[in-house]
Amino acid sequence: RKHHNYCVGIIGAPFSKGQRRDGVQRGPDLIRAAGLVQKLKGQGCIVKDYGNLTFEDIPDDEPVGRVKMPRAVGRANELLAGAVHKVKSDGNTCVMLGGDHSLAIGSISGHAASRNELSVIWVDAHADINTPLTTPTGNIHGQPLSYLIHELHSKIPILPNFSWIKPCIAAKDIVYIGLRDVDPEEHYIMQYLGIKTFSMTDVDRLGIAKVMEQTCEHMFSKVKKPIHLSFDIDALDPSVSPATGTPVAGGLTYREGIYITEHTCQTGLLSAVDMVEVNPKQGRTEDEINSTVTAAVDLLLACFGRVREGSHKPDYKIPNP
Amino acid sequence: RKHHNYCVGIIGAPFSKGQRRDGVQRGPDLIRAAGLVQKLKGQGCIVKDYGNLTFEDIPDDEPVGRVKMPRAVGRANELLAGAVHKVKSDGNTCVMLGGDHSLAIGSISGHAASRNELSVIWVDAHADINTPLTTPTGNIHGQPLSYLIHELHSKIPILPNFSWIKPCIAAKDIVYIGLRDVDPEEHYIMQYLGIKTFSMTDVDRLGIAKVMEQTCEHMFSKVKKPIHLSFDIDALDPSVSPATGTPVAGGLTYREGIYITEHTCQTGLLSAVDMVEVNPKQGRTEDEINSTVTAAVDLLLACFGRVREGSHKPDYKIPNP
Amino acid sequence: RKHHNYCVGIIGAPFSKGQRRDGVQRGPDLIRAAGLVQKLKGQGCIVKDYGNLTFEDIPDDEPVGRVKMPRAVGRANELLAGAVHKVKSDGNTCVMLGGDHSLAIGSISGHAASRNELSVIWVDAHADINTPLTTPTGNIHGQPLSYLIHELHSKIPILPNFSWIKPCIAAKDIVYIGLRDVDPEEHYIMQYLGIKTFSMTDVDRLGIAKVMEQTCEHMFSKVKKPIHLSFDIDALDPSVSPATGTPVAGGLTYREGIYITEHTCQTGLLSAVDMVEVNPKQGRTEDEINSTVTAAVDLLLACFGRVREGSHKPDYKIPNP
Ligand SMILES: [Mn+2]
Ligand SMILES: [Mn+2]
Ligand SMILES: [Mn+2]
Ligand SMILES: [Mn+2]
Ligand SMILES: [Mn+2]
Ligand SMILES: [Mn+2]
Repeated sequence: RKHHNYCVGIIGAPFSKGQRRDGVQRGPDLIRAAGLVQKLKGQGCIVKDYGNLTFEDIPDDEPVGRVKMPRAVGRANELLAGAVHKVKSDGNTCVMLGGDHSLAIGSISGHAASRNELSVIWVDAHADINTPLTTPTGNIHGQPLSYLIHELHSKIPILPNFSWIKPCIAAKDIVYIGLRDVDPEEHYIMQYLGIKTFSMTDVDRLGIAKVMEQTCEHMFSKVKKPIHLSFDIDALDPSVSPATGTPVAGGLTYREGIYITEHTCQTGLLSAVDMVEVNPKQGRTEDEINSTVTAAVDLLLACFGRVREGSHKPDYKIPNP
Repeated sequence: RKHHNYCVGIIGAPFSKGQRRDGVQRGPDLIRAAGLVQKLKGQGCIVKDYGNLTFEDIPDDEPVGRVKMPRAVGRANELLAGAVHKVKSDGNTCVMLGGDHSLAIGSISGHAASRNELSVIWVDAHADINTPLTTPTGNIHGQPLSYLIHELHSKIPILPNFSWIKPCIAAKDIVYIGLRDVDPEEHYIMQYLGIKTFSMTDVDRLGIAKVMEQTCEHMFSKVKKPIHLSFDIDALDPSVSPATGTPVAGGLTYREGIYITEHTCQTGLLSAVDMVEVNPKQGRTEDEINSTVTAAVDLLLACFGRVREGSHKPDYKIPNP
Repeated sequence: RKHHNYCVGIIGAPFSKGQRRDGVQRGPDLIRAAGLVQKLKGQGCIVKDYGNLTFEDIPDDEPVGRVKMPRAVGRANELLAGAVHKVKSDGNTCVMLGGDHSLAIGSISGHAASRNELSVIWVDAHADINTPLTTPTGNIHGQPLSYLIHELHSKIPILPNFSWIKPCIAAKDIVYIGLRDVDPEEHYIMQYLGIKTFSMTDVDRLGIAKVMEQTCEHMFSKVKKPIHLSFDIDALDPSVSPATGTPVAGGLTYREGIYITEHTCQTGLLSAVDMVEVNPKQGRTEDEINSTVTAAVDLLLACFGRVREGSHKPDYKIPNP
């Protein structure tokens, strides 16, 4: 393994209107307060913090069909897409700190605008692939992939502030890891599109090492594309990351999460990361909040070169007495 | 995988006299209160709740040899055997909600009465195979298998209210999963009978996927028999299911438990399930009780078609705008 | 598997000056109070408890270079080395209850003095291989291996009360398991010496069964040497053993710890065990302390013949009615 000096650009996206629980907009500041920037620098990264985006308030954002707060979500993601594009243009690997998972719309759109084609690794308890017509809740954090996938374009109705979005991912370039709470409609869509999925049943059967091996085989079967890693903290088990809006029992262990990010890092192709759905108001104790935030930070450190076996600079020599 | 509409018949057995800790008789009502019936219906099952059995009080139930409360346990299981036979005759997969694990005597007897031969998957921290002469505690919940196995018939003394019991399982048709607290006498019996066992050491070595593969290989090596799954909640780790009478460190994870039940379901041969030893009085907090009861419900949902990757009806089509 | 009657000699080493946190000197008495001796006897061991060592107070123990409290650590380990040598000369497998991990200097030195060459299995979140010149903290519990390895002899400066120490292990005879917090200098040293390491990444990739298989392959590739197992309780996950001075997220599960000790026992070569870094003052609740101490006891029981599938005496026969 080579010793890299990763260039990391961080964007905070304190946005919560893709779902109904207050608090998730505090994710970016909490993750920073846990020392993300210093720790990345400590492991040799060159870090630029682009700060937090400011999202305008949009009054009278009435549902359109089942879809809740479409105008706010559409506008916020347009802003985010521009910011991510800038971070990428500056030559950085982009870290987007959410906020809820509806932000993947802007993060992936902005990322795709700066690159030809992307692979997406979506680590989540949920598939987040409902269309505006299949969503049971109307919350857009359960729908982002539907707006981004070429093959679903004809299934998406017109929504206010969504016209800027151009589908930018092919179904074959997506890999899911961690699924365990999938709506029937989502299951149909995933199968219909032939998306590669590793549910928790698959993780149990194969083990996380084989899952990552097969993830890479699938992604690299033709051409190696830049990787967008979209990590919903609810992919981890609620015993590790309880402070999140829609926890589901039976999640990834801390170690499995770290293995995913270590392995993704080692492909050398990681180009952007989302870390979303950290919601301190969903933690019942300080411990629960800390555990969730610490996990988010550790996952990001592993995205940028931290390995558990340790590492040293190429020129190091052991001192003599 | 085909989409099934399982017919499920539920019997509650609020019985605690196979052991000494009060509270385990509340298992059936707690598991129902956590939404078992509605959740099974929600995933497409046809559910009939046969309600709770009423067990007569038996005064002066003095120990016979080492065996405690033999008359109460014998009578309760005779009643349960009849009830299980009825549920099976009605064409249902039987779910028996315990109560303590001595109830397996009646559950398996009643099940066997309606079928030719059974395979038994016994998921437990304990082997529950002491005879009345080897039991160190006298509690019958540590002995049920000894009364049911043909090969042990000559080792069982006469007990009051036990004369209705006919051994109905062959040692070769039993598979243990999860063992980690086995008495020396039980270990001798298991080896002497050549029973297939996957202790926690084996689960650690093989992984749960290979354990289930080999479990099915063993069960299906000759003819495929209906499966009786007897699930003691103490098979799971105490961090998942603390509210149980005899917790033992180092148990199955929630995910391993779900994998066992998902996989058993997918054999298409599951014919009866026991879910026993949920004891709310052994939980120290509401959280501990909820975690235990939720695990029991989730295991049962996985027994009847719930899969973590999701599923959809065969006729579903994705809606167009 | 044969039924052994292990001869076990226990030494308590209530010593804490290899690090800065008070409380770790209470480890030996806590582990005994949890029933270690009775439980070992209960599983057929012949146990001699040699009691606790008494360490003299050394005033004015000023740092030498970066190294803190060298005189106290040097003297305590000289005493311990003699005690371990005695336990081995009496024909026992030696159990050294720490205290902090600097005690491995004396434990391994005393063990090596009674045997030709040793294999060392070092189970730890940390590599504990800093030299006095590379240590970032100065605490000797992060350095013990550097004093013991032949190949590092030229890198070790003279320290007061350390002159009795003779390097006694070859780098090729060490296997690490559980590493996840390794200093850059330590990583260099490990690679430079070609030490066999299973970091948590390796445990995740291979599974604990393959890790132990490869550990034994490595150790037994030429001649089978007696095994010194040095177990730092912080190798386990903080959810299992929180009461320790330097906990690190993402550790071994209780089951993985037990698998390591079961497997080491079954080599038939285990000759000495250290159980170190249990620190009750680092536990926040009684539960946290109990969980840590119980894990330490259970690991030791598995070192001396306890197996989760159970066992029985060769002459046992099942009683007839
Ligand atoms: Mn999610
Ligand atoms: Mn999500
Ligand atoms: Mn049990
Ligand atoms: Mn049981
Ligand atoms: Mn350590
Ligand atoms: Mn250590």
